[in-house]
Amino acid sequence: MSAPDDKIALRHGAGGPAMRHLVETLFARGARPEPGVIGLDALDDGAAIRLGDRWLVFTTDSHVVSPPFFPGGDIGRLAVCGTVNDLAMMGATEPLGLSLALVLEEGFARKDLERVRDSIEAACAESGARILTGDTKVMGRGELDGVVLNTAGLGFATRLVRDDGLRPGDAILCTGTIGDHGLAVMAHRHGLEGGAALRSDVAPLNGLVAAALAAGGDAIAAMKDPTRGGVARALVEMARKSGVGVLLEEAALPVRPAVRAVAELLGIDPLLVANEGKALLAVRPAQEPAVLAALRAHPLGREAARIGRCVAEPVGRVVLDTGFGRRLVVEPDGELLPRIC
Amino acid sequence: MSAPDDKIALRHGAGGPAMRHLVETLFARGARPEPGVIGLDALDDGAAIRLGDRWLVFTTDSHVVSPPFFPGGDIGRLAVCGTVNDLAMMGATEPLGLSLALVLEEGFARKDLERVRDSIEAACAESGARILTGDTKVMGRGELDGVVLNTAGLGFATRLVRDDGLRPGDAILCTGTIGDHGLAVMAHRHGLEGGAALRSDVAPLNGLVAAALAAGGDAIAAMKDPTRGGVARALVEMARKSGVGVLLEEAALPVRPAVRAVAELLGIDPLLVANEGKALLAVRPAQEPAVLAALRAHPLGREAARIGRCVAEPVGRVVLDTGFGRRLVVEPDGELLPRIC
Repeated sequence: MSAPDDKIALRHGAGGPAMRHLVETLFARGARPEPGVIGLDALDDGAAIRLGDRWLVFTTDSHVVSPPFFPGGDIGRLAVCGTVNDLAMMGATEPLGLSLALVLEEGFARKDLERVRDSIEAACAESGARILTGDTKVMGRGELDGVVLNTAGLGFATRLVRDDGLRPGDAILCTGTIGDHGLAVMAHRHGLEGGAALRSDVAPLNGLVAAALAAGGDAIAAMKDPTRGGVARALVEMARKSGVGVLLEEAALPVRPAVRAVAELLGIDPLLVANEGKALLAVRPAQEPAVLAALRAHPLGREAARIGRCVAEPVGRVVLDTGFGRRLVVEPDGELLPRIC
Repeated sequence: MSAPDDKIALRHGAGGPAMRHLVETLFARGARPEPGVIGLDALDDGAAIRLGDRWLVFTTDSHVVSPPFFPGGDIGRLAVCGTVNDLAMMGATEPLGLSLALVLEEGFARKDLERVRDSIEAACAESGARILTGDTKVMGRGELDGVVLNTAGLGFATRLVRDDGLRPGDAILCTGTIGDHGLAVMAHRHGLEGGAALRSDVAPLNGLVAAALAAGGDAIAAMKDPTRGGVARALVEMARKSGVGVLLEEAALPVRPAVRAVAELLGIDPLLVANEGKALLAVRPAQEPAVLAALRAHPLGREAARIGRCVAEPVGRVVLDTGFGRRLVVEPDGELLPRIC
């Protein structure tokens, strides 16, 4: 960090270096590793507590997306899927239950709340999740822009999957096309030409992940969902935590033509854009074909691809092979788009 | 309800009839009782899932208090205590862990966030709780008034305590003085004369509740913390769910003189005002003395008192014996003070 941050800035909520610094220096400063507990010190997708021969996984996420309704989803679907996916990334593919806390602005339309509720119910039905408990608060007009949702989630994992188990040689699989969520919200918010063709990919990944785990078992070394900061940030974090490098092949990155067109128009790299229905898996080379086949056999994984491999060096870096040369993929420190999720 | 509510109003976040109606018609409409699960249909302080011979209790609360710093506490202490207390009210007096999700306004001062963090750490130390996982989002300037915190919590209860086990003859115990939190925030926010003497009672009650449960065991029929809507709302809800009435003795209600003075100035009944460090216990008559003695032996229960008794009729009603006559205690439908917690 260049200077002490005496005021919170948008980048502190962007999921990247500024946010990590804030969390590490403020909230995780006293957190210590403890046997049988994956806690705040791990800065993983969630926490886990060993109970007998299982792990109880516990995650939380607040959602502030603006606008709350966007092509392909809304804040309700996002909240349920975000939490279901965080549980799944740690190996808890059957959610035990979610909490749902609403903060609403006075004057928020009841019909909009009903739409959000319908999406929550649909996403719960899709994922097998259920809302077990909740809370409702209302802030005065002008004190909150619309609605904030928080969901926390619980689930058991028989095998805990982390985001730091990468070894040189591992294949990096991505379960489908990248950049869809962020560019759909961006195009919709700014009324961009060509944006009508874009849709968020927001979806619950627990079924897809369960299929991959069934096919790959212990060969699935790590998983992470590339949300804020996109595939770039997720891979930088996985590489950094694991002490390896990642070499991506640009030609292998699945990007929809409409997403590519809008990304080029905006001068934004789809690697840096948030996804809400995709997962990255690091898989030991021998099981790569079996896992890829299992992913592709699932409706949410038809476009799954190996996008790269782990390498010994440079440690903690992600390098993109463009076919013409190589460049470093740097995670954004700032916010490409605030309130993306 | 007199008319369909097409817009969200402040009373929808007040914890009373309007909020119950909103939650019941929107979010709990599909919730059904299920063996081994206390879910959304129960509208209790939290959810519970039977795991072997224990119950895993799961709660969530968002905190929006304004201002975030007030005499006796701040939003950080409130968030930890609110969740620790919801767990304790269901019998989970040793929190397994909390999640902490921050939503911050761009420009929020880092030193204020450090104060909030310090309070969170202090309240965790006091209650034996710990933050296991978290989330940070930032909204643009003017999109959020300061800060919203969400905490979810987990804990095990060997005996699950509910809010609906009242029987005629049960004693209603209150663990201390009433009205302190709400009137302290109110006086502070409005700069009221005499307000300087008031302090919020915000405190973690799990130790106090553990002492009461050790003394009373199964004779503690029900517990609830009288937060939004105060003792009035909590008792109306307990009476309604249990199919009994409650007869309160006005002379027995513990109210600090400074609280009484400000309440009289404002024309507000302390029975309707939020508490953040008090619990109501319904206790079978034979064990009342033992439980009351255990409460009074704890630093947070020195002013514990029997404030009334359960009666067979009128069902679902709370009646106050003033010494001169009797009057019905009606829970407020609206908000005495928005953003009290």
